[in-house]
Amino acid sequence: MSRETLSFPPTSIPPLSPYLPPPNPTSPKPHLTLTYATSLDASLSLAPGVRTTLSGPFSKAMTHYLRTRHDAILIGCTTATVDNPALNSRLESITSLDQQPRPVILDPKGRWEFTEDSQVIRLAAEFKGKGPWVVTTRGKEAEERAGLLERVGGKYLFLETGEGEKGRFEWGDVLRVLGKEGLKSVMVEGGGEVINSLLAEPENRLVDSVIVTIAPTWLGQGGVVVSPPPRREGGPPQLRLGDVSWQPHGEDVVLCGRILRS
Amino acid sequence: MSRETLSFPPTSIPPLSPYLPPPNPTSPKPHLTLTYATSLDASLSLAPGVRTTLSGPFSKAMTHYLRTRHDAILIGCTTATVDNPALNSRLESITSLDQQPRPVILDPKGRWEFTEDSQVIRLAAEFKGKGPWVVTTRGKEAEERAGLLERVGGKYLFLETGEGEKGRFEWGDVLRVLGKEGLKSVMVEGGGEVINSLLAEPENRLVDSVIVTIAPTWLGQGGVVVSPPPRREGGPPQLRLGDVSWQPHGEDVVLCGRILRS
Repeated sequence: MSRETLSFPPTSIPPLSPYLPPPNPTSPKPHLTLTYATSLDASLSLAPGVRTTLSGPFSKAMTHYLRTRHDAILIGCTTATVDNPALNSRLESITSLDQQPRPVILDPKGRWEFTEDSQVIRLAAEFKGKGPWVVTTRGKEAEERAGLLERVGGKYLFLETGEGEKGRFEWGDVLRVLGKEGLKSVMVEGGGEVINSLLAEPENRLVDSVIVTIAPTWLGQGGVVVSPPPRREGGPPQLRLGDVSWQPHGEDVVLCGRILRS
Repeated sequence: MSRETLSFPPTSIPPLSPYLPPPNPTSPKPHLTLTYATSLDASLSLAPGVRTTLSGPFSKAMTHYLRTRHDAILIGCTTATVDNPALNSRLESITSLDQQPRPVILDPKGRWEFTEDSQVIRLAAEFKGKGPWVVTTRGKEAEERAGLLERVGGKYLFLETGEGEKGRFEWGDVLRVLGKEGLKSVMVEGGGEVINSLLAEPENRLVDSVIVTIAPTWLGQGGVVVSPPPRREGGPPQLRLGDVSWQPHGEDVVLCGRILRS
């Protein structure tokens, strides 16, 4: 993976600004920005476990810019395992660790087997990113890894899973624990399961803004698709965005919007 | 259904023009434009058999403009049955039947049970649209309907289904028979099965241009999704568009492009 710094054109900032966390937040709930890149057939990747490059250089630079505008970046444990992402920002304007976002990994079952060679751990050890916070269930933390997290400035956060399916955390609980830790804004980057659970009713009410990059490609059936769970009986038929802005960049388009309350 | 005429802003024509059929075609194969409107999760509708309004007034006017720029509009028999579409153009600039496109319905198994009350038949009887051509397999035509088609200026066209699955026509055969009938351009409008079969490898080589409208809404899992069949072993991992143009209009975006040959 290339380690070069990235520059984001200042002229591209104003169209994004209305969708970014406010400078002086008044809500105790962290501002939640949902961001992802898909194909025309709504896929994040060709298949589960396959990292797929979809979007172009603008989208990459934008992601690194957006990371500097949020207190934290949140992903699920599958993405942490499959992508081994850096989760820092390589924007050239960054001069101190303070400007880096906090990596947050949702791992209710303690499945993320990180080591000192995991990118997010290595970068934290090199002061190129903050130490990750791993949100897990008490008893699912790994003793030997707690020390590793501490050494790089990270930690475990403990939370009970909700009543719902699959032993997931409730989004309200996740935001509450992150808010208590002082985070004012969280950018959710993936993967498919995390995004789809956040687009579900009523969880999507916690989403403040959505920034989606669409690449002009089809990945075909069998990909990891972003699509909310089937609607509930009597629920709204569609989940629509309002305050919509489409911004073409190179071959891709960036869509910004806010989920309409029905 | 409202029957008002529509106007399409002349300033919106130049961005579309490069993707439209050439004025003096040299190829015996009709120019094939694939056009459809989806949600962010690539759905055409909430569920099979459910007509779903996704895109806004620009997209509707654009469709009616595009219909005037093609010799024919092609849909599958499921869409013909479920949507009962008019398949004519209500653009205010249309002054004669010559400017209307030819409705073509692919119906290999003779399933479309049209009557004189079907919109496309009724409009043809009123000289507001051309009589439809129904492409079917010999023996699957309905005797009593052949007369109805003839009375409104339509007809049956006969074709054998291909070797492939589901008793579908081969796209090459369909275009050959339409080309022999004198059509220089065909716009394929849906539904999901027709579009996906056309995005398959190697059928997508017959597609000259693609015009997709994307609405900022998610329909949720269980919708009728546009996504090519899983790629074949050794085939290209993605089906990409080149010569891409993104045109925001109201809440929607219109994507034009040409399929890249791999």
